[in-house]
Amino acid sequence: MVPETPASDAGLRRVELRSDTFTMPTPAMLRAMTAARLGDDTYGEDPTVRELELLAARTLGKGDGCFMPSGTMANLASILTHCPRGTKVVVGAESDIYVYEAGGASVCGGVVFEPVRNAPDGTMALADIEAAFPEDPEDPQFALPSLLCLENPQNRCGGRVLPLDHLAQVAELARRRGVPVHLDGARIFNAALSSGVPASEIARHADSVQFCLSKGLSAPVGSMVVGDAGFIDGVRRVRKMLGGGMRQVGVLAAAGLVALEEMVDRLADDHVSARALAAGLALLPGVTVEPVETNMVFFRVAHPTLTQDKFLSLCSAEGVHLAELGHGRIRAVTHAGVSDGDVERALAVFRRILAPVAAQT
Amino acid sequence: MVPETPASDAGLRRVELRSDTFTMPTPAMLRAMTAARLGDDTYGEDPTVRELELLAARTLGKGDGCFMPSGTMANLASILTHCPRGTKVVVGAESDIYVYEAGGASVCGGVVFEPVRNAPDGTMALADIEAAFPEDPEDPQFALPSLLCLENPQNRCGGRVLPLDHLAQVAELARRRGVPVHLDGARIFNAALSSGVPASEIARHADSVQFCLSKGLSAPVGSMVVGDAGFIDGVRRVRKMLGGGMRQVGVLAAAGLVALEEMVDRLADDHVSARALAAGLALLPGVTVEPVETNMVFFRVAHPTLTQDKFLSLCSAEGVHLAELGHGRIRAVTHAGVSDGDVERALAVFRRILAPVAAQT
Amino acid sequence: MVPETPASDAGLRRVELRSDTFTMPTPAMLRAMTAARLGDDTYGEDPTVRELELLAARTLGKGDGCFMPSGTMANLASILTHCPRGTKVVVGAESDIYVYEAGGASVCGGVVFEPVRNAPDGTMALADIEAAFPEDPEDPQFALPSLLCLENPQNRCGGRVLPLDHLAQVAELARRRGVPVHLDGARIFNAALSSGVPASEIARHADSVQFCLSKGLSAPVGSMVVGDAGFIDGVRRVRKMLGGGMRQVGVLAAAGLVALEEMVDRLADDHVSARALAAGLALLPGVTVEPVETNMVFFRVAHPTLTQDKFLSLCSAEGVHLAELGHGRIRAVTHAGVSDGDVERALAVFRRILAPVAAQT
Amino acid sequence: MVPETPASDAGLRRVELRSDTFTMPTPAMLRAMTAARLGDDTYGEDPTVRELELLAARTLGKGDGCFMPSGTMANLASILTHCPRGTKVVVGAESDIYVYEAGGASVCGGVVFEPVRNAPDGTMALADIEAAFPEDPEDPQFALPSLLCLENPQNRCGGRVLPLDHLAQVAELARRRGVPVHLDGARIFNAALSSGVPASEIARHADSVQFCLSKGLSAPVGSMVVGDAGFIDGVRRVRKMLGGGMRQVGVLAAAGLVALEEMVDRLADDHVSARALAAGLALLPGVTVEPVETNMVFFRVAHPTLTQDKFLSLCSAEGVHLAELGHGRIRAVTHAGVSDGDVERALAVFRRILAPVAAQT
Repeated sequence: MVPETPASDAGLRRVELRSDTFTMPTPAMLRAMTAARLGDDTYGEDPTVRELELLAARTLGKGDGCFMPSGTMANLASILTHCPRGTKVVVGAESDIYVYEAGGASVCGGVVFEPVRNAPDGTMALADIEAAFPEDPEDPQFALPSLLCLENPQNRCGGRVLPLDHLAQVAELARRRGVPVHLDGARIFNAALSSGVPASEIARHADSVQFCLSKGLSAPVGSMVVGDAGFIDGVRRVRKMLGGGMRQVGVLAAAGLVALEEMVDRLADDHVSARALAAGLALLPGVTVEPVETNMVFFRVAHPTLTQDKFLSLCSAEGVHLAELGHGRIRAVTHAGVSDGDVERALAVFRRILAPVAAQT
Repeated sequence: MVPETPASDAGLRRVELRSDTFTMPTPAMLRAMTAARLGDDTYGEDPTVRELELLAARTLGKGDGCFMPSGTMANLASILTHCPRGTKVVVGAESDIYVYEAGGASVCGGVVFEPVRNAPDGTMALADIEAAFPEDPEDPQFALPSLLCLENPQNRCGGRVLPLDHLAQVAELARRRGVPVHLDGARIFNAALSSGVPASEIARHADSVQFCLSKGLSAPVGSMVVGDAGFIDGVRRVRKMLGGGMRQVGVLAAAGLVALEEMVDRLADDHVSARALAAGLALLPGVTVEPVETNMVFFRVAHPTLTQDKFLSLCSAEGVHLAELGHGRIRAVTHAGVSDGDVERALAVFRRILAPVAAQT
Repeated sequence: MVPETPASDAGLRRVELRSDTFTMPTPAMLRAMTAARLGDDTYGEDPTVRELELLAARTLGKGDGCFMPSGTMANLASILTHCPRGTKVVVGAESDIYVYEAGGASVCGGVVFEPVRNAPDGTMALADIEAAFPEDPEDPQFALPSLLCLENPQNRCGGRVLPLDHLAQVAELARRRGVPVHLDGARIFNAALSSGVPASEIARHADSVQFCLSKGLSAPVGSMVVGDAGFIDGVRRVRKMLGGGMRQVGVLAAAGLVALEEMVDRLADDHVSARALAAGLALLPGVTVEPVETNMVFFRVAHPTLTQDKFLSLCSAEGVHLAELGHGRIRAVTHAGVSDGDVERALAVFRRILAPVAAQT
Repeated sequence: MVPETPASDAGLRRVELRSDTFTMPTPAMLRAMTAARLGDDTYGEDPTVRELELLAARTLGKGDGCFMPSGTMANLASILTHCPRGTKVVVGAESDIYVYEAGGASVCGGVVFEPVRNAPDGTMALADIEAAFPEDPEDPQFALPSLLCLENPQNRCGGRVLPLDHLAQVAELARRRGVPVHLDGARIFNAALSSGVPASEIARHADSVQFCLSKGLSAPVGSMVVGDAGFIDGVRRVRKMLGGGMRQVGVLAAAGLVALEEMVDRLADDHVSARALAAGLALLPGVTVEPVETNMVFFRVAHPTLTQDKFLSLCSAEGVHLAELGHGRIRAVTHAGVSDGDVERALAVFRRILAPVAAQT
């Protein structure tokens, strides 16, 4: 199904494993973009955007939704809507919100980050979350938490999926403490697949959820925020201020509709590919592979002479593209643009590059 | 050339005069969007986006460019890049940046607005700009200006075009004061047409310029910031923080390329339509029309019994859509979606609605 | 009563007219500072601070009060408490909050300034205030006003006192619009004296008031914010964040108590001095004096050869210190450190410096 | 030397161990406050303030100094001066700046906190600090560190003193990374005493230092920032914006001068008292005491029936005041207001309250 076109570099087919953000729009998406009914969405008059927003809300079991140019803005607008200036957002220390989103909540919102340690499986100890709430909320020396953020799956923890009962426990803690929960569900459908439940079963533990149309779901651009109607009104206001209000953006929403309607089920293929890739990697000398629960494979390469940077550039020269992803680990992400043949080719490349290890030991 | 389709409401063709943001992508744009070479632009790998950025920079005579989801973000990222926290941005009191962009520079940047009066023709008195610079810059009670913003054409001043020598004088003042100039040139090609110069002749008076692809140029989404390469690096960093980094956004850039290459020259038609509309309006009882220099017609309706709100809603019921635009004025904007017949139809509707005035007086 | 000590410069007694912030603590204040019962006020345990806060609240007819290191912080903390991030504070374009407080509300609070023109008498046109409220509050392109600020007396308008019915009208407008009123009453007791009412009669038109202990009231340091108890709790929280929480600050509050108890009535002397100064100035060639309503005299000097800067430095060389205060005007402020003899000496100096004018014309 | 006055509650002398911020101004301070030469410091004309600023700078070996109303503002203004909007400040996770200062750097400065784990002895692993610097500084998804903060002694780590070579290593890391170091030296003279070096030997590892006059040094109010002259100019500008500019604040600076000149040497007594207190506590059943290096004693109480809260309130009822200070620990701080007799009395109270433990086990 994935066209086996050559990689640009050397006649080799490119195997793009850096991220599922590299997915290309499908032919159905391109057709839909061309045929979409459009309007000026900053006046709330683009019917395709509206259709997508309502579908997203319904799919996640929330009252309303809002289209966003990126997951970063989806998270940022959600945080700014939940959190008054001068309060704290409690996030995983390994969360994308904390690590990869340029600190926008502090910059644009005067919101203070309180990062809490993520265990290797992505969970946070409830006691650590509790510790973010100061003993004495009346004491003005403390910024008070106004939001808990979860991420599922947890990208920097290897794409690990949070257990449903962990979600429930965090949600219960938040309720008890009187703060809402925002879920960065950039890849929530991967988590749902892995947990064997509909995405709404994950989303119900959060007051607001963002998810990306442009990762595994292959839309070219866009993320959704869903939550109750009043919250979404607030998000829409913040979106305008940040400059995320767009005009005939139904052209993107049309692709998003295809993404939601046609591309969710095929994520299972990516999980299969990821496990295949992991299994192959585990057989290679000097390679340690972390547990795989979604479409991500995190691994390390210990090699007598090759540094990791050198390994990455050798792979790249052979058309296999990987990314460094924190703590000295390499990440390979499978997606609609990665065929079974690509996995095999990647493994062959790894094997060739790492071969001397076997020879030397 | 504009298809004469019926308005949705009552079998009437809709005449959309609220804004040129309502322009629809052209067939050439839709084709280009489908055919575009794409990549993940947050990795800087979308060739179509890059092509557009370089074309925009070249067209405006600047070193580099950056694609943005909206003019609001284009202005916001420019201001944040120019202005350190705690400094002042000097803007027109009638500028879109000050009035319509939700105060983002203060919210996201800790930048203080110093609005300066715009004359009816959009210009600002140099003395008023000078007055924004405190007598004693060493005195910490004053926030210091770090940027002057111009808007050309000046939307809320009736789409008036700033004289080139006014631009030169403001630029000279800024240079003398040691602050850069940012130009909100959302409709810079309309200004250039009206001034009879290439857009780069306007842009050269500014250090950075934003312009919109999605107004008269008819692209569905997007604005460009151009400036020197170091500035654009800064803008790109801010764009990520605000959540304006997008993935295969070449789908939008492709339309933007068509907009820049094919849609600039036809703006002359919109100016003709606007003048025709203004001329027709001037003949109607109780209507006062402001001078027209671009594709905008600002007017007032004085009527013995009709309020302006009522007038707008009667027009709307007949399929002719207008907007209130500050200071009790009505704005009608011509664009690629407004045919000569539409102008005539709009005038006929206005005439019918305002007819009783003539009868009664 | 004012000791006639020589000015440091040339054996001349210094006549300090730049501001009433130059007032020195009285002997009673110094005694009180030494004798005050103290505690750690950041724990809420300084009894002298608490006594002052309650006296201030009672005097202004409000529920509670909070001691502040400066009027700037008093205003800033008030604005941050009233205004959520991303909203607008409507202020006089000539207000100290807008002109002299370094834009803190935008920097620390993400609050957008909406300056409204002050008439020469300090009032703002109600229509101009109304215009700060956007037609359509639902439209996210507008930052929404969340606070109106008044200043009384209006420093940069010549220390003019706002008529009580103007206060009432603005308060009524604010109530109708659903926003609170904050009064920068840095010199509220001067305004009250001029209006012939207790300060509480002015304060009742505002939800919160700040006033300074360190201007005409002669305390060395400090300002008070008063308002209802919940508001003051918020102010206290913001104060800590800004770094305005202090320890045994009863040493300053003790002086503040003397200021409030003993120094209010003597402000009448300053008003008399100011009128005497103005009357004398009015007789001088080339001098134009603005109306005097409090302890401030604003005037201009038109002279064939002397620039204003030169005039100020000549005065200064003779031990008479004046300040430039915007729009090319000179400000002279009377206070407890300015005796009748000082006024006469200042006038003599002015006369001597300006004499040639008379000779030449 | 410490007057043995009764505690207010029950005829008992109050033993105030919650903090050294409870220190009262000495008679010499009160005399100095009364006799100080004063001026309006917001005009830079208070000679006593200036004298203190220069003494502070000289003492710490820096170019200039600035008086502040609090340590919180001293830290906040330092961070805002060092850190552009959108950058990261790397701080200890147990630092006062991160835990107790209401997140002001994020609120007022758009600065992102990157808390790094403190070891029990207060140090941070160099590798953890390194990890705060992103692999790829060009990548706009990362906020970039612009400042490292140290705290010495480390309050929440038990008042532990950072080894001089740790300071040197962190300073070297910062230099290599191109970021400055700010030292929160609230109690730097306690650290210097413990390290056996002048405070300047600690300060030389930092580009800027804040220290408190109002803790062990017993001044009623105030902290100092010292650094090079250009930095201090920036701090002064930020101070005005925050509202920390004060008028005749020489009244406080006068006490600060006494604090710096007369109160540093006596800190040795507090260290002796703290060790005596710790030694006594260590003998009590169920009490675990952390290592004591300055004037702070951190301990835990394990008791079969008494909760820690109950223990604290029982002590308080007997006139001995202690504080909870994070992670379930109790803090007792010795200072000029705590005599040898007070330490004995406190120990006697603890012994009595905890006695049943011995009986029951």
